[in-house]
Amino acid sequence: MHATLVQLHIKLEHLADFLSAVKVNHEASVQEPGNLRFDVLQSRVDPTRFLLYELYACAEDAAAHRETAHYKEWNARVPDWFASDRRAAEYLCLHPSQTVEVLEAQFIDGA
Amino acid sequence: MHATLVQLHIKLEHLADFLSAVKVNHEASVQEPGNLRFDVLQSRVDPTRFLLYELYACAEDAAAHRETAHYKEWNARVPDWFASDRRAAEYLCLHPSQTVEVLEAQFIDGA
Repeated sequence: MHATLVQLHIKLEHLADFLSAVKVNHEASVQEPGNLRFDVLQSRVDPTRFLLYELYACAEDAAAHRETAHYKEWNARVPDWFASDRRAAEYLCLHPSQTVEVLEAQFIDGA
Repeated sequence: MHATLVQLHIKLEHLADFLSAVKVNHEASVQEPGNLRFDVLQSRVDPTRFLLYELYACAEDAAAHRETAHYKEWNARVPDWFASDRRAAEYLCLHPSQTVEVLEAQFIDGA
């Protein structure tokens, strides 16, 4: 599994715009093939700082995210609201294992 | 929901020890009341750098994690293997919503 952690710092005057846009991005991204998590986290210390935790079954699925219409729309609008440059880092997900994730997804699909 | 992100940097000579200990910590932590995620991520750039993504239903559940036997055992052993100080940051989880998480847990429990 392939994880990307993206740190975002948003201008205070665009916080409401950002909160609206990130909800749309989350809701579309969790529908993508191979997406396992797309969690949106807000710092408890500074509410203008966010972390996106994007977990995909493989690196190819993560790359495909950046080709979607919803990502392109997000990326055309949101950078104007950044108070400082976004920072991204890539990780392997060691635990939980792929097997557990696939099983969970099957249970949810079958419910 | 309450998220804690913990950055860890491990001495190369203790990497195997760490990988064994973090698996035990993951497996026990996901059984805790209120735990929603306990993901173990390894940097793709530097395999001695890790991120723990710990998501709980509330801050009280996250605090209770540090009172468990498995956390105390982890915390008695693992800091000796740190190549630099651990760093932790706390977040609110905005998306997915609590409701979705609880529903997913119910599906999995009922399967």
